[in-house]
Order: sequence, then C-alpha cells, then structure tokens
Amino acid sequence: MLILSHTSHLPSETTLTKFFFPPTQRLQAPPSTSGNDQGACYCVGQARSSNRRCSIRSPGLGRMLTRCAMNGGEGPHSYARNSSYQKGVVDVAKPIIEEEISRKLDLKHLSSTFRIADFGCSTGHNSCAAIQIITEAIRRRFEIEGLISQLPDFYVYFNDKVTNDFNTLFNSLPRERLYGAAGVPGSFYGRLLPKAALNFAYSSCSLNWLSEVPKAVLDTTSPAWNRGKIHYVGARREVCEEYANQFAKDIESFLDFRAEELVPGGLMALLVPTVPASCDPNSAYAMTTAPYLLGSCFMDMAKTGRFSEAKVDSFNIPVYFPIPQEFKAIIERNGKYTIERIEVLDNPGKHNLTGPKDHAAHFRSVSEGMLIDHFGSEIIEELFDRYTKKLEASPLFSDPDCDKSIIMFVLLQRKLESYCSAS
Amino acid sequence: MLILSHTSHLPSETTLTKFFFPPTQRLQAPPSTSGNDQGACYCVGQARSSNRRCSIRSPGLGRMLTRCAMNGGEGPHSYARNSSYQKGVVDVAKPIIEEEISRKLDLKHLSSTFRIADFGCSTGHNSCAAIQIITEAIRRRFEIEGLISQLPDFYVYFNDKVTNDFNTLFNSLPRERLYGAAGVPGSFYGRLLPKAALNFAYSSCSLNWLSEVPKAVLDTTSPAWNRGKIHYVGARREVCEEYANQFAKDIESFLDFRAEELVPGGLMALLVPTVPASCDPNSAYAMTTAPYLLGSCFMDMAKTGRFSEAKVDSFNIPVYFPIPQEFKAIIERNGKYTIERIEVLDNPGKHNLTGPKDHAAHFRSVSEGMLIDHFGSEIIEELFDRYTKKLEASPLFSDPDCDKSIIMFVLLQRKLESYCSAS
Repeated sequence: MLILSHTSHLPSETTLTKFFFPPTQRLQAPPSTSGNDQGACYCVGQARSSNRRCSIRSPGLGRMLTRCAMNGGEGPHSYARNSSYQKGVVDVAKPIIEEEISRKLDLKHLSSTFRIADFGCSTGHNSCAAIQIITEAIRRRFEIEGLISQLPDFYVYFNDKVTNDFNTLFNSLPRERLYGAAGVPGSFYGRLLPKAALNFAYSSCSLNWLSEVPKAVLDTTSPAWNRGKIHYVGARREVCEEYANQFAKDIESFLDFRAEELVPGGLMALLVPTVPASCDPNSAYAMTTAPYLLGSCFMDMAKTGRFSEAKVDSFNIPVYFPIPQEFKAIIERNGKYTIERIEVLDNPGKHNLTGPKDHAAHFRSVSEGMLIDHFGSEIIEELFDRYTKKLEASPLFSDPDCDKSIIMFVLLQRKLESYCSAS
Repeated sequence: MLILSHTSHLPSETTLTKFFFPPTQRLQAPPSTSGNDQGACYCVGQARSSNRRCSIRSPGLGRMLTRCAMNGGEGPHSYARNSSYQKGVVDVAKPIIEEEISRKLDLKHLSSTFRIADFGCSTGHNSCAAIQIITEAIRRRFEIEGLISQLPDFYVYFNDKVTNDFNTLFNSLPRERLYGAAGVPGSFYGRLLPKAALNFAYSSCSLNWLSEVPKAVLDTTSPAWNRGKIHYVGARREVCEEYANQFAKDIESFLDFRAEELVPGGLMALLVPTVPASCDPNSAYAMTTAPYLLGSCFMDMAKTGRFSEAKVDSFNIPVYFPIPQEFKAIIERNGKYTIERIEVLDNPGKHNLTGPKDHAAHFRSVSEGMLIDHFGSEIIEELFDRYTKKLEASPLFSDPDCDKSIIMFVLLQRKLESYCSAS
C-alpha cells in the first residue's frame, strides 16, 4: 500500500521542472544480515558474511557505481561551493535541534566523552555548521542546568563513502573547536562505529541515496527494466516499486546498524528531502525533476549518436524521495526507536539557487563523479550545456517559490535494549 | 648531561654519507599544558589554552612549515611507493609485538571494543601491515586461551597530520578486514582521541619528527642560530641542544596525551629510529646523513644564485634522532608508564634501498612537501639531481650494510591512575 501511495504521488512528465540532489553515498551492496550475533565486521562495502570475514558482493554488471561522492576540493564545480541548498536544511533545522536537545537530552547517564556522528558529511562545510549547532546546544544545556563543570568532551565522527574527499573535509574543520574529530570512510548502510558508543547521530540530505541501483531496473529481462530512462520519476509502476523497495531495505539497514552503534537512549536527528503525499500536479518538485531532465538530455545525446541508447539504459541514478508517511512507516516497522518528533519543513536554501545556472552547478557538484564513471568525462560539458538550456526553457527555475518539495525532520531515540527486545 | 651525551655522538661532517627520513608530522606548536584538568580541547594544531577554547599559537616567521606530510597518492614520487625502508621496521618488529601481546595483554578487563591507534600512519600501506600484525596477534591470543567467542570488535584510529593524504589512506585499507577504521587528523603532540578509550597505541618511524623547528635555530640574534645549515648534524653545540630540548619537550607531550587516551594498563609499542650512543666515526648513519647532504645541496645552489643564503638559513628540518638512553630517560622522567621491554633492532628495510637512486626517491617522498613550501616547486628537480649525484659520489650508498643506524623498540604500559599519581 505504501508503494502504491508513493507511486501515485509522482509528478507526471510535464510537471517535472526543477531538481535537487543531496550528498551521495558509496554504492555498495547492503549488509546481508542486520543482526549483531556475529560481532562487528567492517570492510569497504560493510558487507557482512557468516564467518566474521567481510566480503564485497559481486555487483551486477553496471549496478556498481564506483565514484559517487560529491565533487571534492573547493573549485568552481566542487560541492563545497555549490551546496547552499543543503546549507538551508541545516539552517531551518537549527531551532528544532536546539529545542529538542534542551528538552530530550538525558544528562544523567553520560560518560566523560559525548560522541556525535554525521552520516553523509561530504567535504564538511555544512557538516561543521551542523556539528557546531549540536555541540553548542548541548553546552548551553549544561550551562543552564548549572552543570557546566560536568560538560563532557565532544568527539565527532564524520562519515561518508570511501571515495569522499576527506582531505578537503579535514582541512575545512574549524581551527578553533571544542571537539575531537575523526573521519570514518564507508557506506552508512553498514557498521561504521564501535558498539553502543554513539550518543547523537545526525544525517542531513543523505538518506535518499540508495546503497545501489535496484538490480531489476537494469535487467533487460525484468518487467522492471527501465528502458530509456535513468530514474523512477515518470517511469512505469514496476520501476517505482523497485526503487521504493530498495529504499525501505536500505533505511532498515541504516536503522539497524545505528541501533548497534547508539547508546540506549541515544538520539538521532534525520533530515530527509521528501515529496508531499498529496501531489499537486501543478506544483514542481525540484528534487524529482533533476534526474528526469538529466535523463532526457542523455536520450537526446544518444539520438545524436554520442553514445548508444543501451549505454543510457544501463545507467540509473540511485536516489529516492519518499513521502513522509512512507519514511515514518519504515521507522515504525524497524521498532528499535521511539519517534520523538516529526516535522515537515520548507527549505530556505532553495532561495540560494537564483537561476538555471545555479541549479545546473548545484546538480553537477553532486552527480559529476557517477556520470563520469559511466559515460566518461568527455561528455560532461555538452551534457551540462544541454541541461542548462532545458532549465532555461522553463520559467520555474527563476522562481524558487515554485519548488514545493519538503524536508522531513525526524528525531528518534534509541530504545533501551530490554524494551527494544520486547517490542 | 643527556644533551651533552647526545651531541657527543654526532658524526662529523666527513662521516655523513647516508640518509633516512621517517613519516612527517604536522608542524604545529605543542600544547601549552599537558594536564587534563580543563578537559579535552581539540583543534587543528591541538594547542590548548586555559579557557577550553583552542587557539593556534602564532608561529615565528619561517618556523611553521605548512605541508610536511609524506607525499600522497600512489605515483612515482609517492610515499606509498617509496617506503620500503619503513616497511622493514614493521617486519623486524613483528615477532616482538606478537610475543609481547601473547605475554602482556590483559584479557580480563577488556570491553566489547578493542581500540588501536597508529600515530603517524601516512598513506597507510605500512600502517595496515602493522595493524594486521597487532589484530591477528590478539585474535590468536584469544584463540589459544579458548576465549575466541569473547574476541572484542577491533576499532582502529589512523592518525597523521591534517595535510596527510587521507584519501589514499582510506583507499588503501584492506577490502576484507576485521576492524572498523577512522582517520584522525592532527598533530600527535596534542590530544586526538577520547579519554581513556585506547587499548593499544602504536607508532613507527614517526616520533623523530618534531612539532616545530626549534625557534632559536632560526633566530639570527640567537647563539643557536644555525647559519648555513638546515639541520643539527655537524652544527654547533647550541644548535644540537635546541633540537634535543625540542625533542624532549615533544616526546613529553606525546606521552602525556597518550596517557590521557589510553586505558589504565593499556599498551604502547613505539619504534623510533635512533643512533648508537657509542659513535664509531668510521660508521655511517643513513638517517643523519640525509639532512646534512641536503643542506650542502642547498648551499651549493645558493652559491649559484638560485636563491639567497638567507633563504637557506631560514629553513631547518624538524627531525631528530636520539640515542636510546636519551629516549629512555624521557620516558622514565614522564612517569606515566612502566617500560615493559626495550630492544635495539637492525632494520632489514635498508636492504630495500639498493642504490643512490632508491635513496634519493625515498628521501624525496618524505621531504618534498616541506621543501616546496619553503623553496618553491621549481627547485625540486635540480635539487634532487644534485642530491643523487652526491649520493653516487659515495660508495656507501651502494652497500646497505654500511648503514649502522638502529631502530629502538619500546613497549610501554600505562600505569594505573593511582599508581601513576603516587609515582
């Protein structure tokens, strides 16, 4: 039912007019089990087998995208210089995170170190801003309660895929800061941190990125083969279902592994770009438009003989935008957390993208790596020239208020083990 | 007295014929205090001030070298492809580390996660080999004792300076491994890890790198001004004393901060290139020859007008090679550890450098960053051409057995807090 309600909200091809892409995650096979009876096992892909040895599953041909992190460095096409949209999400969540920390954080059972992790930190500029908000809110809470002398040390784990530019991340860390910092490479759909050591988990604009492209959409023998398209938007129902199922499976893994890493009672703040359940066909959703328009550019280029249509068929973008109810249902089904707060937010960051060129630069900064891996670097300039022209052809890309996509804020609390087992 | 005994062992200019350089550390001001009464404070330089806010001390002009990590990547000049000398240190220490873990590791008081850190990991190839030795030795110990079902999860912190190439490090992590991994950017002369969480600390060929060039050797008004040289080898006594004092101060900081991070009873294995106390003037010490010969190349180039002699005077290499007794005395003075084992080792890795070109490539991979920062990239090719010729002019660089430098292995155990305070 969830899948049906999701697919029904997809905008038709004619209403797809804007785009948005959050930070990527390394596209690897998800863990084969989510239980923890065999102890932690870590590897590049975070897959887990039955004998505590890790192995990466052999990916289906074309499914594995090897370089899907945000653009590194600080150059004109970098994520660092083209992520003001995502910065808006950090900004709009600030008062909510501050309020929840002031209300929900349990000061009584803290150890000498308070551990925080950002899952999907990219090159760090927005991540550092979020960590500053979290640590400052905790510090203020201790201050208000007259417990400042008991303020624990902060230690922050910055996670992103192995292919993320951690060098730029580390160089973007504030020179003056109150926390120790570590970079953690690997897919957040696997185990990343020590057991029951994490006090506060955070992730913004990252969980939309699937662990892999659903196998069936690239399988020419499957009813879900997504011929002539690179995304589920505007595609057949079977394709949409494959994406929705992959998303549900991935989020389940994410919740399971974070449940292993969080201390009982630990908090998790998630910010996830979503689309409203009640779809207004006259509205535009930036985030769902992006892959659609990109796909049409690819097909245009294939028609000119730049590459084959089969080349396009073998590429799909592993990103999914749920409706809020769908995401909430996955959390409830998982059962390891209590939902402390759910809020739907408008992203002020959309006003930072003032025209088609901003939109194109933004999109390029989050997708270029995976596009080069599949199509080669020689097509990039032409692709984004075409893409920019498509954006310019629509009046919607000059008016940020037309973007009706939403951000879902969820605050979860890790249940205590006993309660969790009983649930 | 220590300083005197150290300076007396320095080889004269005529016996300086080989070189060796271990991994660099970010050259930052050391922490202003080593006590932990003000809680942990982390920043790029790991300096600590009195109000829990971090600040980087303003460096003296010319003292701060901004890019002193090993050469990144995996290209022909990379550390990854030119560190077989250092790999020899890992190899020769293997049976000793295995033996000590089998004898000294306390299995009774371990938590569910066993945390290991390598301080000065560089781009990871040698570091991963060392971590493999350590984790496998621990696993075998549990197996032998019939406790394999209680084997904890391993979590490894790979530390090096902010300017280290962590991207290459993360990509060099084994795809199949039994440990979680995090990269920790920052000087190991500051606080890097959560308090009392580390079970096993390791550092190989790294502690020779000072936190900064001693101020006085660059001060034209000081009796220790090191005019016309770039290192203490062959320099005046005052210069040698400044280097020795800086080394003692840095190691004291290293031991203090690791004492905060280690669990009581935690082990620390250190491998430090040293020179013998009894200096044989007919012997050659590769590690001390390197900066000497480099300095003579710089002075030759200054004489040709390539740059000024003042440019050479304002550059010194922040590396120091103690005698074993000197290093031991610093540990004993620190008082936070018991010395469980000390051993002097010959490095089989010297046989991997079979001629002058190998030596030059090795030296370039560890020094190029700091040389470019001070002199500019345009001098590098000429510099190493000259350097290689100097190496070729000496028969010593074709016979690894002539290198009489030694590696000091030290196994330390963190004292229990009560015992530590009483000592």
